Amino acid sequence: VQFQIAFASYSEKHPTKTLALYHALRDAIVAGVWTRGTRLPSTRDLAVQYGLSRGTVNQVYDTLTSEGYLQSATGRGTFVAFEAADSAGDAVSGASGEKGTDLPHNRSQAAYRLSPWASRLVSLPSIDGADGFEGIDFGSHLPDYSTFPHEEWNRCYYAQVRALGKLPRERRDSDTLGDWQLREGIAQYLRRARGMAVQPEQIAIVGGSMQAIALLMQLLVGPGEPVVAETPAYSGIRRAIQAAQGRCIDAEVDGDGLVPADWDAKAVFVTPTRQFPTGAVLSLERRQALLRWAREREAVIVEDDYDSEFRHRGRSLEPLKVLDRDDRVVYVGSFTKTLLPSIRIGYAVLPPALVEPFRRAMGLYEPYPVHLAEQRTLAAFMAAGHYERHLRRMKRIYSRKFALLTQLLPSISGQFDWVESDAGLHVFGWWRGTEESYAAFRERGRHLGVRWSEASMQGPEQSRYGVLLNFTDVTEAELAEGVRRMKQAAEGE
Amino acid sequence: VQFQIAFASYSEKHPTKTLALYHALRDAIVAGVWTRGTRLPSTRDLAVQYGLSRGTVNQVYDTLTSEGYLQSATGRGTFVAFEAADSAGDAVSGASGEKGTDLPHNRSQAAYRLSPWASRLVSLPSIDGADGFEGIDFGSHLPDYSTFPHEEWNRCYYAQVRALGKLPRERRDSDTLGDWQLREGIAQYLRRARGMAVQPEQIAIVGGSMQAIALLMQLLVGPGEPVVAETPAYSGIRRAIQAAQGRCIDAEVDGDGLVPADWDAKAVFVTPTRQFPTGAVLSLERRQALLRWAREREAVIVEDDYDSEFRHRGRSLEPLKVLDRDDRVVYVGSFTKTLLPSIRIGYAVLPPALVEPFRRAMGLYEPYPVHLAEQRTLAAFMAAGHYERHLRRMKRIYSRKFALLTQLLPSISGQFDWVESDAGLHVFGWWRGTEESYAAFRERGRHLGVRWSEASMQGPEQSRYGVLLNFTDVTEAELAEGVRRMKQAAEGE
Repeated sequence: VQFQIAFASYSEKHPTKTLALYHALRDAIVAGVWTRGTRLPSTRDLAVQYGLSRGTVNQVYDTLTSEGYLQSATGRGTFVAFEAADSAGDAVSGASGEKGTDLPHNRSQAAYRLSPWASRLVSLPSIDGADGFEGIDFGSHLPDYSTFPHEEWNRCYYAQVRALGKLPRERRDSDTLGDWQLREGIAQYLRRARGMAVQPEQIAIVGGSMQAIALLMQLLVGPGEPVVAETPAYSGIRRAIQAAQGRCIDAEVDGDGLVPADWDAKAVFVTPTRQFPTGAVLSLERRQALLRWAREREAVIVEDDYDSEFRHRGRSLEPLKVLDRDDRVVYVGSFTKTLLPSIRIGYAVLPPALVEPFRRAMGLYEPYPVHLAEQRTLAAFMAAGHYERHLRRMKRIYSRKFALLTQLLPSISGQFDWVESDAGLHVFGWWRGTEESYAAFRERGRHLGVRWSEASMQGPEQSRYGVLLNFTDVTEAELAEGVRRMKQAAEGE
Repeated sequence: VQFQIAFASYSEKHPTKTLALYHALRDAIVAGVWTRGTRLPSTRDLAVQYGLSRGTVNQVYDTLTSEGYLQSATGRGTFVAFEAADSAGDAVSGASGEKGTDLPHNRSQAAYRLSPWASRLVSLPSIDGADGFEGIDFGSHLPDYSTFPHEEWNRCYYAQVRALGKLPRERRDSDTLGDWQLREGIAQYLRRARGMAVQPEQIAIVGGSMQAIALLMQLLVGPGEPVVAETPAYSGIRRAIQAAQGRCIDAEVDGDGLVPADWDAKAVFVTPTRQFPTGAVLSLERRQALLRWAREREAVIVEDDYDSEFRHRGRSLEPLKVLDRDDRVVYVGSFTKTLLPSIRIGYAVLPPALVEPFRRAMGLYEPYPVHLAEQRTLAAFMAAGHYERHLRRMKRIYSRKFALLTQLLPSISGQFDWVESDAGLHVFGWWRGTEESYAAFRERGRHLGVRWSEASMQGPEQSRYGVLLNFTDVTEAELAEGVRRMKQAAEGE
């Protein structure tokens, strides 16, 4: 490692190089920059690095050793012997400095005048973190990791990383919107598997679908302008609307999905193939009403298609985008659930007129694609047929879990209205009781070692609560045991 | 592949399933959803998928075959025989639909009312794209790909992707700010190699450093608020300030870097270790003045340290952050130049009080780290010592090129003031002539097959121009030839 000290600044403050080096090293040790046991460079290396004589360095090492800051081990080198007082305790501590000496104590309270945007962000509800829950977790949205074809993915990755240097120069950086081959691969997939007439030029590769949603909000919505969101919906939608200073219009959801209305709004977020979280499929009549509304209002429909690849039985689910004759729909898809969340690649299919604004918005945050190596890996993985093979395999596994879960649910149907569904990676049910009885049920569930995701809908008097059972990250045995515990929790005592 | 058609919507419009299927398939073929040669599913598969009798599907396939839309090859299946008229021509064409039939022709001109933010973005200067230049390119900022240790990187990646499923649940998603092990690895590296007392909690992993800069601007700057930027500077800085609606104050740069002043501003962008692009090192006196200013004004200093790992001779370059006693400095670093741009990982070292606002801003765009697999790979790569070994190897290669280039430059010193530098990945020189003579020089250079990056500084009467010679992506032979061509271009005729 290159060992670096603040020698330049110290040599301005001290009359001799020896004193400068002494204080630079001593302060760094006291401040905990190098912890006890860290090996210092040889006197020769340090002398060369800072343009000092070796005698100077030897003298400083000797002084610090005699003072107990350093320790020498014959033939092994010189080591830090001093343990900084608070180097372990104060976790988020701040930048370099002589801790505990002449520093003000309120450093981490340094005043920052944040922008109005940041103040708004800080007031938004935060994202739940992990909390070490150890029971059966229907709240985990992680995929079944055991199915991931590591060998095939890795072979593609290796080949792509190797090949990067051999690309023509202009292909190495690539377009802000992402690797061309991947955009072509996704367009081809959407044309063949989802019936969408999509060109690669319209496709923007993003990290996760949330990135696309947040950027779209910033592009489309000005301060105070209204945007429609389903109730209930993924919480990120409302965060994105609020961060863009938009005003959220709550739209009702029933068994046929979003209930259309003649909103005075610039955009609507909708999950037509499977309403999130209820799972309702938007009826054809409503799809047409929504498209008509967007055309008349010159509004944008953002279609989030988060898990409809996973059809377990019945008819194919058709994206709303298929019916979009007027280029009013932005279709957002993702590989997070079909690959791994740690290879987080999503995409947006943009109407032609939004391609350039979206490119500029992305480019502001990063002009070049952020994970080109993995984008190219995915392109190769798709081209070789691995992606669809993997998808088929996951579908089999998830369909089995889905069948088992839907078979178990009637045992607790007394307390729930389960929403019927033929697809997706979770099952949704409305709690039949009151807000209070739901809270007690949830509490008993935690106590019995089972938890789930939940959604709520504000009613005129009472809020309605729903449970969302993700079945991807639980085994079949856990699934049965989880439902048994939920039943016990629902029945009380 | 799952083959999907808009059957549901067609079956509402047509009296029989046969007619619905016929029109759904025919329209998709005419619209170019499936191109000539695409293989259709077997009649049996399609029947199952849409709940039709096999006879219905057979009948439709036969009709379409007799009409020339489809073609059968015995034992191989049924293929699309029709070539959609405009499927290749109109590149960015839009969503599904019966092209050329009843569609309005102005689809890609669909009106979108963009937000004020988006309108501002569209008016900003765009980012230069690749243009197929084939000469010697000192404008390429790409690294030398030949040095990248593919085997070691790939071994780490493979191990990490495999291990992801075995992580405890709460580690799989990870913090918005990035993988903990990587944050620890970077903190350790900065402590040891750069003399910065940094804790992993303060580190945010981003895609490229531009992401950190744009987010910081949004966090810190409200509409109309002033921010200081060096002149010249990386153009992304001004884009970020303008996108956040900030007002840019131009700060002068001379041979000792940024010239401090008592700006009435919320933040300053500075490149203290090597001013971009001139390469000037900010003097200690100015560093102290800058820190004093930030403390008094309660402002933030954003330090962009883009290439000072590459020291070729002389003293170590010390980050400004080392002197930051008051937590006013955000240090931005990146692995883009030390690894590969296709593995674009950067980071920001945040003052403790900015950690949570930054986490929320990142989380708005994506609550989970976007390339966790590669983040963990880098952590393992660093822990195994591969990173520093790779860095040493690159330093040797780049130092050779640097030595060669600085040896060649005196041959064209008549027209340039070369800025002396001991570090970095480019050399900078001011053109001595007028704006007009510079334009002619550049033009002759292009003609002779050599180009470079450039920077300009607006003067009271004339603008001053400078050339920026990146030497990472050119061979030693190209380097010599490139300087020869520049000399020829500079001498005219």
